[in-house]
Amino acid sequence: MVNFCQFGAGRIGQIHAANLNANARASLRYVVDVHEPAAKQLTEQFGGTVSDTGTALADPELDAVVIASSTDTHADLMERAAKAGKAIFCEKPIDLDMKRVEACLKTVADAGVPLMIGFNRRFDPNFLALKAGVRAGRVGTVELLNITSRDPAPPPIEYIKVSGGLFRDMMIHDLDLARWFLGEEPVEVFASASCLVDPKIGDAGDIDTAVVTLKTGSGKLCQIGNSRRAVYGYDQRIEIFGSAGMLQAGNRMPTTVVHSGPDGVTGDKPYHFFLERYPEAYRSELDHFIDCVEKGVAPEPSGADGRAALALADAAQQSFDSGRPVSL
Amino acid sequence: MVNFCQFGAGRIGQIHAANLNANARASLRYVVDVHEPAAKQLTEQFGGTVSDTGTALADPELDAVVIASSTDTHADLMERAAKAGKAIFCEKPIDLDMKRVEACLKTVADAGVPLMIGFNRRFDPNFLALKAGVRAGRVGTVELLNITSRDPAPPPIEYIKVSGGLFRDMMIHDLDLARWFLGEEPVEVFASASCLVDPKIGDAGDIDTAVVTLKTGSGKLCQIGNSRRAVYGYDQRIEIFGSAGMLQAGNRMPTTVVHSGPDGVTGDKPYHFFLERYPEAYRSELDHFIDCVEKGVAPEPSGADGRAALALADAAQQSFDSGRPVSL
Amino acid sequence: MVNFCQFGAGRIGQIHAANLNANARASLRYVVDVHEPAAKQLTEQFGGTVSDTGTALADPELDAVVIASSTDTHADLMERAAKAGKAIFCEKPIDLDMKRVEACLKTVADAGVPLMIGFNRRFDPNFLALKAGVRAGRVGTVELLNITSRDPAPPPIEYIKVSGGLFRDMMIHDLDLARWFLGEEPVEVFASASCLVDPKIGDAGDIDTAVVTLKTGSGKLCQIGNSRRAVYGYDQRIEIFGSAGMLQAGNRMPTTVVHSGPDGVTGDKPYHFFLERYPEAYRSELDHFIDCVEKGVAPEPSGADGRAALALADAAQQSFDSGRPVSL
Amino acid sequence: MVNFCQFGAGRIGQIHAANLNANARASLRYVVDVHEPAAKQLTEQFGGTVSDTGTALADPELDAVVIASSTDTHADLMERAAKAGKAIFCEKPIDLDMKRVEACLKTVADAGVPLMIGFNRRFDPNFLALKAGVRAGRVGTVELLNITSRDPAPPPIEYIKVSGGLFRDMMIHDLDLARWFLGEEPVEVFASASCLVDPKIGDAGDIDTAVVTLKTGSGKLCQIGNSRRAVYGYDQRIEIFGSAGMLQAGNRMPTTVVHSGPDGVTGDKPYHFFLERYPEAYRSELDHFIDCVEKGVAPEPSGADGRAALALADAAQQSFDSGRPVSL
Repeated sequence: MVNFCQFGAGRIGQIHAANLNANARASLRYVVDVHEPAAKQLTEQFGGTVSDTGTALADPELDAVVIASSTDTHADLMERAAKAGKAIFCEKPIDLDMKRVEACLKTVADAGVPLMIGFNRRFDPNFLALKAGVRAGRVGTVELLNITSRDPAPPPIEYIKVSGGLFRDMMIHDLDLARWFLGEEPVEVFASASCLVDPKIGDAGDIDTAVVTLKTGSGKLCQIGNSRRAVYGYDQRIEIFGSAGMLQAGNRMPTTVVHSGPDGVTGDKPYHFFLERYPEAYRSELDHFIDCVEKGVAPEPSGADGRAALALADAAQQSFDSGRPVSL
Repeated sequence: MVNFCQFGAGRIGQIHAANLNANARASLRYVVDVHEPAAKQLTEQFGGTVSDTGTALADPELDAVVIASSTDTHADLMERAAKAGKAIFCEKPIDLDMKRVEACLKTVADAGVPLMIGFNRRFDPNFLALKAGVRAGRVGTVELLNITSRDPAPPPIEYIKVSGGLFRDMMIHDLDLARWFLGEEPVEVFASASCLVDPKIGDAGDIDTAVVTLKTGSGKLCQIGNSRRAVYGYDQRIEIFGSAGMLQAGNRMPTTVVHSGPDGVTGDKPYHFFLERYPEAYRSELDHFIDCVEKGVAPEPSGADGRAALALADAAQQSFDSGRPVSL
Repeated sequence: MVNFCQFGAGRIGQIHAANLNANARASLRYVVDVHEPAAKQLTEQFGGTVSDTGTALADPELDAVVIASSTDTHADLMERAAKAGKAIFCEKPIDLDMKRVEACLKTVADAGVPLMIGFNRRFDPNFLALKAGVRAGRVGTVELLNITSRDPAPPPIEYIKVSGGLFRDMMIHDLDLARWFLGEEPVEVFASASCLVDPKIGDAGDIDTAVVTLKTGSGKLCQIGNSRRAVYGYDQRIEIFGSAGMLQAGNRMPTTVVHSGPDGVTGDKPYHFFLERYPEAYRSELDHFIDCVEKGVAPEPSGADGRAALALADAAQQSFDSGRPVSL
Repeated sequence: MVNFCQFGAGRIGQIHAANLNANARASLRYVVDVHEPAAKQLTEQFGGTVSDTGTALADPELDAVVIASSTDTHADLMERAAKAGKAIFCEKPIDLDMKRVEACLKTVADAGVPLMIGFNRRFDPNFLALKAGVRAGRVGTVELLNITSRDPAPPPIEYIKVSGGLFRDMMIHDLDLARWFLGEEPVEVFASASCLVDPKIGDAGDIDTAVVTLKTGSGKLCQIGNSRRAVYGYDQRIEIFGSAGMLQAGNRMPTTVVHSGPDGVTGDKPYHFFLERYPEAYRSELDHFIDCVEKGVAPEPSGADGRAALALADAAQQSFDSGRPVSL
């Protein structure tokens, strides 16, 4: 049994608390949130007691923390948890500033506690099957990777302003997947982007439509495409092409029902957004983390993975800003 | 909160116990099984205490029972539960003998307790969406209904011998769905069947491959096809055709991953069997039952639905035996 | 080079004339039609001269005839062509009366000329691939066959009245395919049918919605479903299930274009009707016939196939009329 | 009736000659090829007489030419045909050298003859339906365009050496489609590419795997991906995403047949290569050209389209060579 304190009782926090509650090997002991009523509601639904950071981390029986609070609190909480000797599961990103990330990772490494970054998509059953297929040689040598990732609708402008920008906030997931599927590090990043969805996003200094090209040392190529708005729902597809064939993971639909009528043959549109699309992934990533804590092995995606994805996002931003490809 | 006693700790019992355990409005108070170690294991996993029928039903705080024991115990347990004033959720079939069914339903009706029969497929998200589509007029007037239902592999011959035969054991699910989707009662049943999968099934007096044609009073037609063995997994599809179009619910696959290679484009085969194919249905049917018990409304599928499906299965058997269509 | 006379310049006649014109091994020498302007138009488009039956058949350089005139003229023309020593390609059916069919086939057999019946669907690339798959053992032993065949809209009532009824006019194609795919003869036919599409069809003594069950000597089962009206177009699907798997041939769509929008994911509906759905089949069947004439081998589907399909249609009609299965 | 001289009797020449022969409004009067036996064979199959350039162009009854000879002859033949006042259908590319292209187009413009470039893919029924969908507003404002184009296997190294490189030889088709679908001109091109399929291609100074990013003046983004080898056949897909939804044109398969077995659900792989994939496109483009010649209107894709696609291919090559995006 792994005893948890969870930081953050917002939307993503609710998912993690529900999964901790349902996991027979986890116990949700504390919930901490700056907005206490939110923390209270979570404990009522999923157990545990409302607490504060100091009290929670001082509990010698506490084994691990889930950090699902706002991005600007991640690094501090990680460092405090690390110093208290707790295993850390932290939502992406570690921080929006690379120097802060590196300092934080050093503190965690010095403390010797396990650290896992919540790149949930690696745990999606479709993408896991894709990875298994690549490992089994079904595409041979990977040559081209295409990642499509489009949100149903943009977040509020207030969120956009503190998000770190599309590359660090949204595409970072795809950049992590790219590293995972390519199996080697990109050495060049080129980004092209526009503000096409909502001019207010442009006014806030960000873009809402972006494509990125990655190239690895051995010449593998990757194309990523993002949009902040897809009227048909959350569009999450991956295509891997290689010397022996192609593997594709398509969108998931709520049902298999298809209607044939005078206007065509119509099936469901994809699930609306991440809560509906990735429930198993959220469940499995925590399960993997608990597994690692219990067995004393290093979880994946690691802090180094979190850093590497941010480095790619930074490079994409820099490429967009400069209009040139960036070498890594 | 609805307090439950569950009868039966076998394969289907495990599903129900897990769903009771996970349901915030249910409490699994007792588990009864002739094989006590199985009951014990269930209580260890999902709560409650091992008990016997008399003790459990005597508990005034017990609200409801789930009957998931062997078929030959269903009617007796239903009657005892009814007399004890408990709400009843019973796996299909009520009994293999129509007279026994009718006597049992009378006892339940006299006791005035809620009764629901576990035709789980009505709660499958795909079939629910199909039904919603029919209700919304997406096919207009229903004219033709096609139900395909094939198991991955036949059950043991020992099970076949006490199963009541393919029509009562396997096709009864499809017959229930046919009534549900047709929206009116069949008035004629014709069955044609063969033993093609395993001659031992024929030796046991049963068939393993069967097709049935139903006709309703207004002339709607339904075709059902069953096989005890499909090498590609559990094949569960429904097609509804009418004046305004067609709705189809296809099989569900574990992932959306598709491979393109020299030998073609290959996706997942369907889920292996009912445990993998219908988890939401098992969860939802119990949830509906709990809802009805809490609100004091009559659950569906009702005892009358259980009786009607058995009547169709009996008619199919009689048609097959006589070689002629049977009028109802 | 095979010299042809074509009887009939209607809709189906236009297809055959166009295919004869485009076939490098065929020459369309004569066109005969009771309505001379139609014949004239055909010759202007596709070559040949307008003629009459006697003159055309008296030409010693004429090798073959295509009979695409109205059904009631088929048998007479076949007999005259046979006596004149011409190879015969005749649209289905040979005749609506079994005795007339048998007499006609005897005359043709006595004359020793090649005879092919235009069951075009056997030449559809999808169904050919299906047949090749069955032959290659991809389904193992065939156990269940499902044939769906629905027209976009009913023909005029005047046509219905002389059509011989749905079983002989429409389902006869599916009955021929059933024999072809089952690979053995049905020994029992059961039909159930209704008039659901248009009451005028019922007033004309026919039905518009029908299902048939066939059983072969070895116990293979076949389900056929017909409707005279599908609002989404021509619905032509075949599914073959056996000990080693399943093969399905789905509908063909004009394009692969798919739209994703707020209301779902929508692709093309199937081709509208037989002219759009089966162009290759019409082309290939004539090509096969020309091949056989040139090589002196017997074409397929043969006159015996035409007779056997009619026998099944007759049995289906008799089953529907009597309400009982009919043994063959 | 439009009288044609065709230059080139190779693989692509055979397609055009067959289509001219089958087109009721075209007459193939001459065939010219440096390899006379090839020309002879074509005339035997599809009509016309073997001739030489001077004789053919001197015929006052000759209306038009089809230039399907090797790339290095295109510009000369276009100029000679233009000066002789003949309408010109020329296979892509006009020439591999932009200056030569511009000079040639000036000569053609001065002569005032119609000129059409054979970007056949614009006439594929799927892509035409895609374009019609975009025009009808089904995607709203186009924001992201994805073009996948992969050949089944690389051409011979000898061909690679004179091809002008992947961008000018292969991707030029996709660049033309990009302009057509984007509806506005790219202002920036970035290319990344590798030699992953065959090191001999690298030795010949070319690449075999390439991705390109285009950006238009209004900020629309386009991603193109090419490979010289796809083991599952010719991969030709387009996806258009915009403010109101997404349209996708998938690959075309020979049949709709699908097999379900223990290893999954398997359908056909795509058609092998361009001859099988684009027969209607080759037919339709010539039909459009004949239409334009008869009606005296300007055909599309025009010489300017040919020039613009080459300019993009040149920019892609330059981007790859320099490692930087190229502005247009």
